[in-house]
Amino acid sequence: MLSLLACGMCGAKPEQGLHAGLAVELIHNFTLIHDDIMDQAESRRGNATVHTKWDLSTAILSGDGMFVQACLQLQKMPDHVNLKRANEIFLHGINHVCEGQALDMEFEDRDDVHAGEYIEMIDGKTAALISVSLMLGGLAAGAGDETIEKLDHLGRSLGLAFQIQDDLLDVVADPEKFGKRQGGDIFEGKKTFLMVKTLEACTGSEREWLLRCMNSGNVSPGNVEEVVALYKKYGITEFTRSEVDRYYSDAGRVLLTFDDSVYKRDLNKLITFLKNREY
Amino acid sequence: MLSLLACGMCGAKPEQGLHAGLAVELIHNFTLIHDDIMDQAESRRGNATVHTKWDLSTAILSGDGMFVQACLQLQKMPDHVNLKRANEIFLHGINHVCEGQALDMEFEDRDDVHAGEYIEMIDGKTAALISVSLMLGGLAAGAGDETIEKLDHLGRSLGLAFQIQDDLLDVVADPEKFGKRQGGDIFEGKKTFLMVKTLEACTGSEREWLLRCMNSGNVSPGNVEEVVALYKKYGITEFTRSEVDRYYSDAGRVLLTFDDSVYKRDLNKLITFLKNREY
Repeated sequence: MLSLLACGMCGAKPEQGLHAGLAVELIHNFTLIHDDIMDQAESRRGNATVHTKWDLSTAILSGDGMFVQACLQLQKMPDHVNLKRANEIFLHGINHVCEGQALDMEFEDRDDVHAGEYIEMIDGKTAALISVSLMLGGLAAGAGDETIEKLDHLGRSLGLAFQIQDDLLDVVADPEKFGKRQGGDIFEGKKTFLMVKTLEACTGSEREWLLRCMNSGNVSPGNVEEVVALYKKYGITEFTRSEVDRYYSDAGRVLLTFDDSVYKRDLNKLITFLKNREY
Repeated sequence: MLSLLACGMCGAKPEQGLHAGLAVELIHNFTLIHDDIMDQAESRRGNATVHTKWDLSTAILSGDGMFVQACLQLQKMPDHVNLKRANEIFLHGINHVCEGQALDMEFEDRDDVHAGEYIEMIDGKTAALISVSLMLGGLAAGAGDETIEKLDHLGRSLGLAFQIQDDLLDVVADPEKFGKRQGGDIFEGKKTFLMVKTLEACTGSEREWLLRCMNSGNVSPGNVEEVVALYKKYGITEFTRSEVDRYYSDAGRVLLTFDDSVYKRDLNKLITFLKNREY
């Protein structure tokens, strides 16, 4: 949908961005299949993951096959498109996703992850593909370099906002609406934006306790409450909320520079919807 | 090397085929890393496999990363190349490899694999990438459609010859030279060309014994000798040898249609070397 909207925003029929959108959608699902193996996740979107429902080999191979199909879709972009450029944007984006996933796994074994590294990780794992979907939509419409750069910027900010907000919702969302256990990331010892910022902020016995708790593999509900209290004590919850707002505002500002169109208005609605989401 | 030779054979400097060759080499190694996971192989070329030396996640992700790098190499082919065509040849080739791997795994659980299906499987798993490496070398040299088709044909025949010969060497090679246990494929219950042809040839209690033996997961040295005796009884060993010769000759015949060059002579030497290999 992001590819179609970007294509429309750049003055072409949205359908011209269809193959770009299909390519991104296939790659996104390829990364989910392989990530679910690496994360040993048993379910996704309420269904069994591929490696759980079938087996490891099927999951690896069907992911690989989807990668191929994604690239084949991209070759079907409109004739006027510089295919070398489109392929390079797409492939560098996927590479960025792989690097983000590698960082994410590396972070599991590290206690000294700082916020800059965390942003770098989600810039790859989450934001890169959002940016690519917008850029390819622009390319499909024949947009020039300056516009493609703006779409890149818009996608990056949107992706960072979305992911940091996800970390925040884990703590502040109504578990009923969010569909996940409150503090689920804390139970799992995940290095979220809030955790990384809090580890940066606290020192001494507090920091030691937090690290011990995170690395114990056995976090109690009481521990989760104490961690959330630490987040509040150091103003991390509020700071995170302001960062989410900042990135969403940044995306909105870039969007304002595009000519008015129904597609621009739709993307703006989507951004507002995401910004206000409570789950 | 196949890309460089094909490029030279088609009248260009071999170096023009370098990025095509690098793309194929990276993809080949990507398939090995992921195949080793699926086959639960602990060593490859005398070294620990990636998932054994590091871990499953590292092996999946580094394979994915190499896929990206392979595709990026391909975008660097000479400017005169129709990149859409090159990408499609490359991607359809990889798809063919994935399909071959899927068939190979499917065959493990089936007793009714016939020789045609076996050829289809190795045409994907082994021959497709050899064919792609030659075709991309030709494209890099600016070869026309007819020449690209000949390179496809040459690569397919060479690949089939090589793989069927591999199956044959498992039974007839000097284990010292081959570096593998004689009848290793039989011990592992693999559905090789010889096994599939023999299962097609024999009936009744003989076929039942062979299937029971294959599926037992516990083949004794005596069993291996009996299986090899069955291969001989039904003339499968000799038939296989003649099939290997037939495919190599076919590759050689296609090669003859190219203009003389040092590259053509080198490829001919390579084919002769492979044909005469004893391990």
